[in-house]
Amino acid sequence: MERITATYLIETPNEPERAAAVLAGEQSSGTFVAVPGESAELKARFAARVERIKHLETVAQPTVPTGRAPAAAYHRAEIEVSWAVENFGANLPTLMSTLQGNLYEIAQFSGLKLLDFTVPAGWGAAFRGPQFGVAGCRALTQVQDRPLIGTIIKPSVGLSPAQTAAMVQELIEAGIDFLKDDELMANPPHSPFDERVDAIMAVINTHAERTGRKPMYAFNITDEFDAMQRHYDKVVAAGGTAVMLSLNSVGLVAGKAICDRGMLAIHGHRNGWGMLNRHPLWGMGFAAYQKYWRLAGVDQLHVNGIANKFWEPDDSVVAAISACLATEPLGRPVLPVVSSGQWGGQAPETWRRTQTVDLLYMAGGGIQAHPQGPAAGVRALQRWWEAAVAGMDVAAAVARYPELAQSLEKFGGKPKAAS
Amino acid sequence: MERITATYLIETPNEPERAAAVLAGEQSSGTFVAVPGESAELKARFAARVERIKHLETVAQPTVPTGRAPAAAYHRAEIEVSWAVENFGANLPTLMSTLQGNLYEIAQFSGLKLLDFTVPAGWGAAFRGPQFGVAGCRALTQVQDRPLIGTIIKPSVGLSPAQTAAMVQELIEAGIDFLKDDELMANPPHSPFDERVDAIMAVINTHAERTGRKPMYAFNITDEFDAMQRHYDKVVAAGGTAVMLSLNSVGLVAGKAICDRGMLAIHGHRNGWGMLNRHPLWGMGFAAYQKYWRLAGVDQLHVNGIANKFWEPDDSVVAAISACLATEPLGRPVLPVVSSGQWGGQAPETWRRTQTVDLLYMAGGGIQAHPQGPAAGVRALQRWWEAAVAGMDVAAAVARYPELAQSLEKFGGKPKAAS
Repeated sequence: MERITATYLIETPNEPERAAAVLAGEQSSGTFVAVPGESAELKARFAARVERIKHLETVAQPTVPTGRAPAAAYHRAEIEVSWAVENFGANLPTLMSTLQGNLYEIAQFSGLKLLDFTVPAGWGAAFRGPQFGVAGCRALTQVQDRPLIGTIIKPSVGLSPAQTAAMVQELIEAGIDFLKDDELMANPPHSPFDERVDAIMAVINTHAERTGRKPMYAFNITDEFDAMQRHYDKVVAAGGTAVMLSLNSVGLVAGKAICDRGMLAIHGHRNGWGMLNRHPLWGMGFAAYQKYWRLAGVDQLHVNGIANKFWEPDDSVVAAISACLATEPLGRPVLPVVSSGQWGGQAPETWRRTQTVDLLYMAGGGIQAHPQGPAAGVRALQRWWEAAVAGMDVAAAVARYPELAQSLEKFGGKPKAAS
Repeated sequence: MERITATYLIETPNEPERAAAVLAGEQSSGTFVAVPGESAELKARFAARVERIKHLETVAQPTVPTGRAPAAAYHRAEIEVSWAVENFGANLPTLMSTLQGNLYEIAQFSGLKLLDFTVPAGWGAAFRGPQFGVAGCRALTQVQDRPLIGTIIKPSVGLSPAQTAAMVQELIEAGIDFLKDDELMANPPHSPFDERVDAIMAVINTHAERTGRKPMYAFNITDEFDAMQRHYDKVVAAGGTAVMLSLNSVGLVAGKAICDRGMLAIHGHRNGWGMLNRHPLWGMGFAAYQKYWRLAGVDQLHVNGIANKFWEPDDSVVAAISACLATEPLGRPVLPVVSSGQWGGQAPETWRRTQTVDLLYMAGGGIQAHPQGPAAGVRALQRWWEAAVAGMDVAAAVARYPELAQSLEKFGGKPKAAS
């Protein structure tokens, strides 16, 4: 019987072997005493199995409260646990409940982080995965051999549909490939969804007729289920090519239902992700997170960026980009969305670390607050990437393209500015 | 303009006033530099507003990494932030993205926990809330003036539909009010959903015809969206009265879509909740969590229990029960589901602390591993609650009802046994 395998970082006042066994028990038989009917045969067939334990360091204080008396020491370990696929069916939320359900409540864990999981090829075949992914998003935008350059409409809230459309007009004339609503902008009274779509797509469709190239706009359809479907239909009818979901707020099941429609590229915004990942000993890692959403069928997924405005270190960002571009599971990479405090000057380091242009590289303020205006902001981002792929660092890029001095001067003084 | 208000516990290397302002900025204008179009008028109308800051203790180490150089001290505070309802529309996932989106990524926070939020009555009126709630679940099960007594079918996985139905038969003959699937049991090949419903509802319907009372069985419909709808229909057609959702795995939008159908009571299982709540300085508190799900329309919500097998302290459990039974928002309480290591002996303390019988009191092993069998287990739970409401403690209860000595002996030695 094929098995699904999960890797966890754990911390426990007990022996890691004992704590791992408790996890396996809770996540299969699931009770605190032996019950009738739980035969040895059933156990052998259905029980979760501890596959591997790698002992790590010991610490004096627990990461989270255990509800028990203090222990002398807390042992960290990386463990691998497996379940027969028979337990699941092709059921993504039940996979999540199995890998991440009650186990975060178990007193034997003072730390617990799901790092990654693997599914057998046969099980994954029940899911289509990203309908567009990297190649599909390139085809829709007609951008090859360089990152897609994108922006977020700012300010996040308050603009009318007409004001937004005017901004879109300016940005697409400047050569932008991708635009999106902010995640706080869904269907508020001051910018009703349908009116916004009509205003923006009029601009985009006119541009496409004139130039033969249609920039992608990801409309935020995050809403109640029926409203999301209506808004999806509206974007299709208006000739749009993408919608955006706030993944953590929408949830896995409604998210997959939208992805399954397959007519529009799905921009996966991971706002709220920091709550799940930021603690090094608690929650879940990005490798696991992106697999859930890849199985659900998201085409684009946020990864922050090098020298981002948030907390995330570059190493973590680089690992996230790599995870998105891996072919497993399902053989289809997800397009990594590089965002957060980006203004172009991070391109050389992004290239140096990742050696890929399969990115959607987004700047909000980094484009719209450019000293020469948004059009200059878009051109600067394109230039920064040309310089990066040519192997230049920031100094060399500015020497080669003097106009980049402007964005360097405006944004470069505070690459770790945090707000 | 009416406002939605959220309370957070924060920890920051900066002045709390500065960090709160960054939160408000990120969650409204949302960029790291001022952009054109962000007029003073727009800001006044749409910006989040810091309403209150209460300084708390200062600590030497950050709770989570900030990605910045170490600070001399980290300041904790409770802050209140508000948003105009105009930002949202009646859109539950966008409310979540606003209250809990990118802010967990902000470098100025080394700790952040959403404690609670309030919505204006007018905004909440767009949501029906629990269709059944406490009163509706009592009406469906014909149980008044005492807790509903429930159990979970164990072992969690491996039983066939016929084996499950046989267990249900025994338990309902013993007088159980409520039964449910385990959260790991959805629609696996060894217990297909429809077959399980048919087998179990045949037993329950026969019992109802004979006795006039229909125990409630919450079938776990957690699955892909279309499958959830089909399974809901199946339960309705078979005469069932409830279904169960793994809330965190299903997500807010699909969860609300199921609740909105309104024909069945919704048993909200919060597996995975520990990941969101267990850290005292990170994530979210139950007061906030239950409001999202109450707005979505869940009728029953898990709260662990007194002296549970998990990590959660009694004070936290008592607060959760109280939150579920509060009438705000929407005027409809959610039935608290007391579960985890319960066997009846916790009833006196549960009553002493909460003074309510508006509970679904559930035992898995505590019923099915009773020395005299499951029927005795059900009777023991009923007795424990009679004794509790009569004001007896454990010793007095055993003195009055000698049969309780059996469950005390079997389960009482390890009220904090953790597996």
